[in-house]
Amino acid sequence: MRPNILLFGDSITQESFRSGCWGASLADAYSRKADVVLRGYGGYNTRWALFLLHHLFPLGLTKPPVATTIFFGANDAALAGGTSERQHVPVEEYKENLRKIVRHLKECSPTMLIVLITPPPIDEEGRMEYARETYGEKAMILPERTNETTGVYAKGCVELARELGVRSINLWSKMQETDGWQKKYLRDGLHLTAEGNAVVFEEVVKVFKEAWLDASEMPYDFPHHSEIDGKNPEKAFQQKCL
Amino acid sequence: MRPNILLFGDSITQESFRSGCWGASLADAYSRKADVVLRGYGGYNTRWALFLLHHLFPLGLTKPPVATTIFFGANDAALAGGTSERQHVPVEEYKENLRKIVRHLKECSPTMLIVLITPPPIDEEGRMEYARETYGEKAMILPERTNETTGVYAKGCVELARELGVRSINLWSKMQETDGWQKKYLRDGLHLTAEGNAVVFEEVVKVFKEAWLDASEMPYDFPHHSEIDGKNPEKAFQQKCL
Repeated sequence: MRPNILLFGDSITQESFRSGCWGASLADAYSRKADVVLRGYGGYNTRWALFLLHHLFPLGLTKPPVATTIFFGANDAALAGGTSERQHVPVEEYKENLRKIVRHLKECSPTMLIVLITPPPIDEEGRMEYARETYGEKAMILPERTNETTGVYAKGCVELARELGVRSINLWSKMQETDGWQKKYLRDGLHLTAEGNAVVFEEVVKVFKEAWLDASEMPYDFPHHSEIDGKNPEKAFQQKCL
Repeated sequence: MRPNILLFGDSITQESFRSGCWGASLADAYSRKADVVLRGYGGYNTRWALFLLHHLFPLGLTKPPVATTIFFGANDAALAGGTSERQHVPVEEYKENLRKIVRHLKECSPTMLIVLITPPPIDEEGRMEYARETYGEKAMILPERTNETTGVYAKGCVELARELGVRSINLWSKMQETDGWQKKYLRDGLHLTAEGNAVVFEEVVKVFKEAWLDASEMPYDFPHHSEIDGKNPEKAFQQKCL
């Protein structure tokens, strides 16, 4: 009955239902209006995401999502030669993979609202601290990710969105507009704090509103309790459910 | 692909995806393993819930939920003659309505794990304060809900669960085992604080585990990223996706 909003991405999507995180906030904002479906895969890059595409979005679905957020790149942008090299995907391939994902979703549903989200910026110092705490001194001699390189992926993502005529959120740029973004928005140099989650939530809601997927204008699935006459409840349900 | 866990109830279910609340915590605990579907209807009692039953759980669903929590009673237990009289449902009818809900779910799927949750206790003083703050001095002369009456509904709910052979959580009793439960678990005398939400989350997880629906023993929907060989990713996906 209700439309689905699907969140497809890496760990920043997978953990988005933790306390105060952006996925749960979205589910709350759209409660009784749309279902938010979580499809986050920690550690995944776009190359691996392609293997999931036909499983998560089979063609011929009777009820494809009305909107999907595609939020990859943080792992693709891991440096070749660094400790997370296994996850690295060259930027041209990253763009090509995103293009394949968008094309497939359009084939699933030409009316689906597709929102590409860039990776957040990297706080290199915070990332190094996290690695030292987790793995000890030998952890990282060279950085595994740099903010500059991640910025190249973010730029590629936004360019591709423009080219394909889908919406995008440049989280990499947006977050860096705020002083102290390194600690304010990132908890380990890469993953988001509660305030970082609030930025993603606000940006996604803004884009959804612009695309007419505004929770405040969507109908409740069933009558609001204040519309139900205690002595004659049938009436409210006859109007809304038939 | 993934199993669904459905949360059916009143406002305490509807708002369960707010920051740190029990529904979102459940979605996080089962991430990549099961989808948590939110069907909370603020202000609803069991009488009104019956109108939704065939819409939310149509017979012949190809994929009925593997588990459903049924969490009503807080509104049914509003006092006849009080300011929330409109929502009042006599306790015998409350039990009869719950029986109809359980029977219908069993008809949808004989293997569905059904968990009845009693209403939480009422902090009458906190409820009165809330009403005064919201509506001013004239708000409530008589209480709209009492802890004793809600306890009668909780007892009825647990008895019915035993009779029908389904599981139950006696939240009314459980919360009152802790000193200072009134302010610790309830934010307005009725709805739950973050700590109150944590109690619901822990109790639901405990019952799910006892019924073999334990997230830690359920498989991931797709390979964990650490199982993916960077040079030969196909291998992990062939094993897990075919």
